[in-house]
This record gives sequence, structure tokens and C-alpha cells, in this order.
Amino acid sequence: MTDTVKLIMAQINPKVGDIQGNVDLILETLEQAKQKEAELVVFPEMTITGYPPEDLLLRDGLYSQVEAALLKIVNASQDIACVIGYPMMDELGERFNMAAFIADGELLASYVKQNLPNYSVFDEQRYFNSGKQDCVVNYKGIKFGILICEDIWKISPAAQAKQAGAEVLLTLNASPFSQEKHQDRLDTLAHRVNETGLPIVYVNQVGGQDELVFDGGSFAVSADNDVCVQAPEFVENLCEVNFIKQQDSVVMVPGEKAELFAEEARIYQALITGVRDYVGKNGFPGVLLGLSGGIDSALTLAVAVDALGAENVEAVMMPFRYTAQISQDDAAEQANIMGVNYQSIPIEPMYQAFEMSLQATLAVGEPDITEENLQARIRGTLLMAMSNKNGKMVLATSNKSEVAVGYSTLYGDMVGGFSPLKDVPKTMVYQLAKYRNSISQVIPERVITRPPSAELRPDQKDQDSLPDYDSLDAMIKAYVKQDMSPQQIVEMGYEESEVRRVIRLIDRSEYKRRQSAPGVKITHRAFGRDRRYPITSGYKE
Amino acid sequence: MTDTVKLIMAQINPKVGDIQGNVDLILETLEQAKQKEAELVVFPEMTITGYPPEDLLLRDGLYSQVEAALLKIVNASQDIACVIGYPMMDELGERFNMAAFIADGELLASYVKQNLPNYSVFDEQRYFNSGKQDCVVNYKGIKFGILICEDIWKISPAAQAKQAGAEVLLTLNASPFSQEKHQDRLDTLAHRVNETGLPIVYVNQVGGQDELVFDGGSFAVSADNDVCVQAPEFVENLCEVNFIKQQDSVVMVPGEKAELFAEEARIYQALITGVRDYVGKNGFPGVLLGLSGGIDSALTLAVAVDALGAENVEAVMMPFRYTAQISQDDAAEQANIMGVNYQSIPIEPMYQAFEMSLQATLAVGEPDITEENLQARIRGTLLMAMSNKNGKMVLATSNKSEVAVGYSTLYGDMVGGFSPLKDVPKTMVYQLAKYRNSISQVIPERVITRPPSAELRPDQKDQDSLPDYDSLDAMIKAYVKQDMSPQQIVEMGYEESEVRRVIRLIDRSEYKRRQSAPGVKITHRAFGRDRRYPITSGYKE
Repeated sequence: MTDTVKLIMAQINPKVGDIQGNVDLILETLEQAKQKEAELVVFPEMTITGYPPEDLLLRDGLYSQVEAALLKIVNASQDIACVIGYPMMDELGERFNMAAFIADGELLASYVKQNLPNYSVFDEQRYFNSGKQDCVVNYKGIKFGILICEDIWKISPAAQAKQAGAEVLLTLNASPFSQEKHQDRLDTLAHRVNETGLPIVYVNQVGGQDELVFDGGSFAVSADNDVCVQAPEFVENLCEVNFIKQQDSVVMVPGEKAELFAEEARIYQALITGVRDYVGKNGFPGVLLGLSGGIDSALTLAVAVDALGAENVEAVMMPFRYTAQISQDDAAEQANIMGVNYQSIPIEPMYQAFEMSLQATLAVGEPDITEENLQARIRGTLLMAMSNKNGKMVLATSNKSEVAVGYSTLYGDMVGGFSPLKDVPKTMVYQLAKYRNSISQVIPERVITRPPSAELRPDQKDQDSLPDYDSLDAMIKAYVKQDMSPQQIVEMGYEESEVRRVIRLIDRSEYKRRQSAPGVKITHRAFGRDRRYPITSGYKE
Repeated sequence: MTDTVKLIMAQINPKVGDIQGNVDLILETLEQAKQKEAELVVFPEMTITGYPPEDLLLRDGLYSQVEAALLKIVNASQDIACVIGYPMMDELGERFNMAAFIADGELLASYVKQNLPNYSVFDEQRYFNSGKQDCVVNYKGIKFGILICEDIWKISPAAQAKQAGAEVLLTLNASPFSQEKHQDRLDTLAHRVNETGLPIVYVNQVGGQDELVFDGGSFAVSADNDVCVQAPEFVENLCEVNFIKQQDSVVMVPGEKAELFAEEARIYQALITGVRDYVGKNGFPGVLLGLSGGIDSALTLAVAVDALGAENVEAVMMPFRYTAQISQDDAAEQANIMGVNYQSIPIEPMYQAFEMSLQATLAVGEPDITEENLQARIRGTLLMAMSNKNGKMVLATSNKSEVAVGYSTLYGDMVGGFSPLKDVPKTMVYQLAKYRNSISQVIPERVITRPPSAELRPDQKDQDSLPDYDSLDAMIKAYVKQDMSPQQIVEMGYEESEVRRVIRLIDRSEYKRRQSAPGVKITHRAFGRDRRYPITSGYKE
């Protein structure tokens, strides 16, 4: 018997619902772990189905497939142990979020998740009943206590496992990315380590799933609260954690520590991951987008190329009479720098055809939002036609500030299968553009420095109808993320009329957001499943 | 002291979030009840906020407004008692779904909902903690036990109230309509009456709220399980329920019984209510829609006119080279019969402009879905331009069969703020059209009898690319509503290849549905919040 135990944190990227594919990935991972002479592999939460399977969990057929998958994994565990996550349904039809400890061709023990998150993007109480029991498994002379995701965010499941004799805590996670999440996890685990005196192994899923990106970044914390091992973020990784079994204790050995991303790089990686996996897992041959010469489409193009490669990205400039020459020059320049297929299609002929056919309608009153939206919808229609013909998916380019206040055209620039910047405030769009250019200059400098404009009427500037973006983003953050009242926001130093106007715009744009494409959640509260507001609402504060 | 107690079931139509407006409605209702010399008024669940307020419940400001509202109601209860529903937040920030018994200027007692639904369209565990205590109030010599909505669907809260001495059960509800719901409620209450031997008063909210319609239909069941009183469906109503207090018991007196709608009439009323309240509560001056000469837009027009009046509805025919003359004749005829503003705008000029500008794109391969979608998107853009100019909201006209299999164009015929037929299967569209014509002939007979066609290419028929609608709707029901496996559906008597094709279409169309307008839920499982499927999914059965 050896004095050391080698564990692998299997930070993998499953595809939701693809049970066969996920099992293949799991078995391959076990093989690789054997080659590394590991004793134990810990997988993320709900490994077999991927997370979150949402209402697929309501289909009975899922559970027989999961059982068959589990059997395959049990059979493959001859020379290696693993802890694996999956959903289970019992004879009474009750469902549970489970983890099994599998070794030597046997399912040694299983654990039922105790804390079921039902806030933010999570709906686990829609599907699952909660467990009550600890699960501590003595394997290779070490007592491993098993926990699943939300369990580690509460005090009691860890305390219960310690009480039951656990010497090491293993936690299986599907913890979605948001800006502050990494620090939150560190802080939370520090509490658990301090309370229990136990080392903790935290294994996270990686990859994009609709609105969510899982950042990976699995890590292991010693009983002294040192991060001994750190897996890289945003990539699949098999990362070793070694334990030495001593007389009366188990010691976690310092190992590899991947360098972590700084804030902007991390968000950029989340965007890339979200785009790459939405496109890849849905089988699109690539993407196309409208490139306007503005900052949002410029950043979206950079993200798309970094995610998918220039050969899979197309950009289309669709100029009109209000499009500045510098917009066209800058768009062409960026497309050229990034090496993407680029074309320019003026929208004048379509606009004139609509103008003629809508003569009676447009004659009523002065030109207004109608004429502006028409331009945006012609562009949307052009992009969708190209998409229909070549199969490439359209990327929408709206940022969070626009999505919040409805500064975008439904069925116009909101057209697309995925909306990478949906949760990125405009001020962060600038920061990310500068960050990306600091690696290599792909966005023409002028795109970053010129005043933002939708170019839908002569000499239009965003700031003609919106507060400056620093103020706007601060107000959006206060109202949407922090649920602050108008009064509290005024006390931050903004004009009351301005605050009320922004809030009214946010409230009134819910109907547009309901029809918007999914995008990557990067903040604590994104639009989408994270924020479920009624469209019809008479609420005022 | 009187031997009888008169209770009013206050079947009202609050607006979600409009606390001031709802309080006004409540106070006015109390006044009317006083004029009817009632002793007690029972309101629906969450009366003060309307139901469901969704994430408005996460805003602290809501609770201070609710408290102020409650105080006003308490002050107005000098000569009348009421039971009223509202959300409450305690000092610890825990939230509860409550009911208060208010009388003589005092809040006599309050009840916390015990069973919090978290399935289907419901997310109550996202917001609330559950109660444990019964609440029985002795008023005018009768012991009233209070329950809230989901409580009555379980055995224990009613049993607990009986145990605590209740002689009558009052249940406050916000129970959304679906086809079978009325019978489900009757059956459920029969169980509770049989178990407890108590009469039950069931008060339901009425009106539309985004995807949901509340059908009202409040009723009261005696201890002998007779429906003694029945309020009408789909309208606001104050309905009396009288009790006679005897030596040792309380007897419910048979009262008014409104006639109930038959199945098709009931669904039609739900559609009308949904449209009327979405348009009205969101302040639109009316609606417009594309009238194609087909059955879906014909029924949508009838619903819109019945909901809003002809003067608030506009219809637009947008013919193209594939539009049959009979389509144009039938559209014009229906518009004329129904007395709505009608115009015809041929889309040929826009189509030609797009065709020219997209020459390089369209030259690749044979004409396909690209050219078809282009027609639909030009129409969508025309409708949105008119909507932008005159403020009327666009109604989308897709039915559930199309929404299920994706037989509709995103940003084309899916354009609109509301989608009345979204949950109405094509076969039911025909039934409803015939039902509506049985009242008065508003849909030209030929629209109902001719084979359905999208008219997007020469001689196109829906059945060229879809199974016949009887089969299609049966398969959709089996897969979507009943979660049946492909194998089970094949066993119903369908070809395996056909079943697999339909299921694949349903699965693959999730991305389109995610960007669709809300529509009225009329079935046990509607698309929308009722069915939360991942877009990215590798699941196969």
C-alpha cells in the first residue's frame, strides 16, 4: 500500500443532453487518468448529462439512458476510481441530483445533493428533491466526503461530512462564470476550510451552454487554506492533486498552479468560450455579422475570430446615406487585419422600395424611429438571407447598455442566433476592445476613440438620446444588478429626472429583451433566465 | 345577531405591479360589497400586487408599498371584513405569500401559504418561504379556515384547518387557465370536501398577464359536494355566497350559478381575454396584423376584433407573385365583414430590390428557404414600420403546430408583440374558426375549407413538408405535453421515420421559440416559461 494518493480533477466540457458523447468523454478521461497513474478522478456536477439539462430532466427516457451510462462507467472503473455526477429518478418518480463513488467495478456509495439552488439562473427545485445524508467513502486509506456545488456554499453539509469522519472534501460543481465568481468561490471555500479544518477539492465544469459559460478554474485548497493546485480557466484540463497519508492526517501536496486571467482577459475568455461552444455544439459552420464601423460590432468580430478562426467568420458592411466614410474605411480595415471574408451591400435600393410602398404610412408626421428602424430591419433581413443560404449563424452585436434601455431595433440589429455582448455594458465594451488591441492591434484606433453613433439619421450620436455611458452603466448596474430604488440611485449623484427616465426605459424594454437572442452571462445579474420580469407591469418605485 | 352571513367572491382583474391601481380596485370592491350588505369579501391570491409579479418580488421597494396598501385596506374595513392576498418580507429578508383576514379596522389574522408551486409556469420557491400554520378566524359566528391556491391541491392544509376547528374553507387563488383546468379544480375540491366535510369557497383572479390568462370562474361547494354558487368565467364579478349559521353547523345556501362555456367557446374566451389585457394593460392604442387569406390570420383577426373592437384593429394584405387571387379576395372579404381598416401592399418592389442586392448570395444553388423567408421578412418589416408610425401593436399569427416544428419565419411572420394562437394547435384553429362562425359568419367559408398553404412558392401546400395536421398535432401533444418517447408515439400508430422527423423538428426549433412573442397558454404545457428546454442539446431518445 502506497502512502500517497493521486487524484485528478477532471475539468471537462460535456454537452447538455448528449449522454453518449459525454460517456465517451468520461471513459476517455478515465483512460488518460490511468496513464497518469492516478487513483481517483473527480468529475463535475451532473457529468453524464451536462449542466443544466433544464426540462430534459422531466423526460423519463433520460433516466434509463443515464442508468445505462452509469453501468458503462462502473464497468470501466477496474483500475481506477471516480466520483461522477448524474440525475436519478426513484420508483416513486422523485428526482435527485446525485454523485456516485465508483471503484473496482462497483458503485461504492452515492450522495444526494442537499442544497438545491432556485435563484438567479437556477431552477433546481423545479426538478429535484433534496438529500439529507452525508456520504463519506474510505478509499485507499483516505476518507473522502462528497458534496455537490451549492452544498459547499452552506455551512452544514461540510460540517456534517466532517462529523462523519471525512478527511478530504470533494465537491462536484457546475458553477457558471460571472465577473466576481472566482473570488466568491475562494472566499467561500476559505470559510469551509476554516470551519472544518479539511482540505477541499473543487472541480468545475468548463464550456458554454446557451446563456451560461462555465469557467473551469478547478482548484484544491489545503487544510491550511493554501490554494495548492489551480487548474487553468476556460479549457478542458486534467489536473493532479496529490495527498500524503500520514499517521493521523492527510496532507495535500502543493502541485501545479495555472496562472489566472486578469479581469478583462477573463471576461474576454468567457465571451470566446460562449461563442465557440454555442456555434460548435449547435453545429453551425461559422458566423456572420454586420460590421458597422462602430465599437460593438468591432469587438464582436474580434471575439468571433478569436473563438472560431477567421476562416469561419464573415463580415458585411451595409452602408446607407448616413454611414460616414470613416465607418466604411474602419470596417474594411478591421476585416482586412483579421483576414475575414468581407463584403459591402448598400441598403439604399431596399430602403427606397420600402419608402415608396409605405408612402401613405410614412407621410404621417415627421421622420422618426420608423425610418431608423427600417434601416436596421433591412440590414437584419440581408444578414438572415445570407445566413439562410450558407448556414452560418448571425451574431447580434448589441451590448448590455443598449439591451437595458432598448436602444436597439427588434428584428433589426437584434437579429441573430447569439448575442455575445448582451451582458457586456458599453463601458466594458471599450475596456475589452483596448484589452484585445493590447495583444495585437485588430480594432482600428479610431473605432475606439470616435463618439459612438448608430448612424440612423444625420449627425446622430448615442449621447443625443442617452446619458453618457459612464453614468448610464452605473445606473443600470444599480437598478438591475443591485435592485436599488430610484431614490438610492439619485443619492449616488444623478439627476432625478435622468434616473427616472433610464428606469422607465429599462422597464419598458422588457418586451424587446424577451425576443432577444441568448448571450453570455458575465455579470451577477444578466438579462434572460437570470432576471424574470413581467412584460405587463404597472410597478413604479 | 343575524343567522346568515353574506360573503362576496371578489373575482377581480388586478394589474401586476400596479399597487396603487389595485388598491383602488380593492377599495371600490369593498364599497360595492357594502352596498350589497355583505359581511365578508374574499379576494384572489396576491390581490395587492396581482399574480405573478415574478422578479418584482425581489425588489425591496415592493414590500413597503404593499404595507402601505394594506394599511389603507385595513382602514377601509370599518363596516366590512375581507380576506386579501399579498407578499410580505420579514426583518430577515425572508419572503412569504400571505393572506390577511381584515375586519373592523384591524388585521385580525394572517396566513402563510404552505405549498409553493415550482413547476410548469410557477417559480414560487424562487421567491418565498413556506408557512406551516393553519389560520382559522371566527367571524360573525363562523370559523373560516384560510388557504392559498396550491394549498387546496394537497390534502394536509385543508385537514389541518379542519383540525383547528374550521367550519368553512376560503381559498384565494391565481389559477391560470388551461383547457382541462376547470374540471381539475372541481375534482380537487370534491376530494377536499369529502376529506373534511367542509364547504369551500374558491375565489380566482380573472384577466390576462403576459402568457397567462386567469379564467375566474370562482365557485363555492357545499359540504354535500354541490356547486352551490358559480361565478361567470373571464369577467370581473362580485358573486354572493350565503351561509346559514345553525345550532352545530354552517350551511351554504344555493345561489346564483352562471352558465359555463363549452370547450371551444372557453378557449376562444381565453384568447380574447389574453389579447384584450395584453393590449390594454400595456397601453397600446390597438393592433395590426398581416391578413394572408389563410386560416391562422383569419382567426387571429376575429379574436382581435372580438377583444378590442373593429375600430382598434387594422389588417394588411401583402400579396406577392405566389399569392392566389382567392387569398386576396377572402382577406378583403373578411376585413369588410368585420369592418376593420384594410389595405393591400404588394411586396414585389422590396423583393426585387433584395434580389438584386443579394444577387451573389442567391446565385448559390437553387431557390430554397432563403427566398421564402425573404418574403416573410419583408412583410414583417412592413408591419413593424406601420406599427412604429401609428403605435398599434403587431399580432403574430403562428399557431402551436407551426411554433412546435418551426414552420414559420423568425423576424418574418413571427414578428409581433403578442401571438394569440401560439398555444393553439392547427386542428383547434379550425375548430375555433368554425365555432366563431357559428355565432356569426365572419370568416369566409373558403378560408376554412381550402388546403392550408404558406404561399411562399408556386403551388405550395403545408402538407408537402408536414404530416397531415391531425397526425402532426397528435404527435406534438404526445411529445410536448405528455413527454412520451418516440417509441411510445410510434405505438400510437405513426411511422417511425415520421415520428423521428417531427421530434427532430420540435427539438431543433427551440432557438426560434426563444425569440418568439408571448402568447396565451391554453394547454397543459405551452411553449414559453411552461417548457424550459435548452437550445443547445444533444439529447436523443
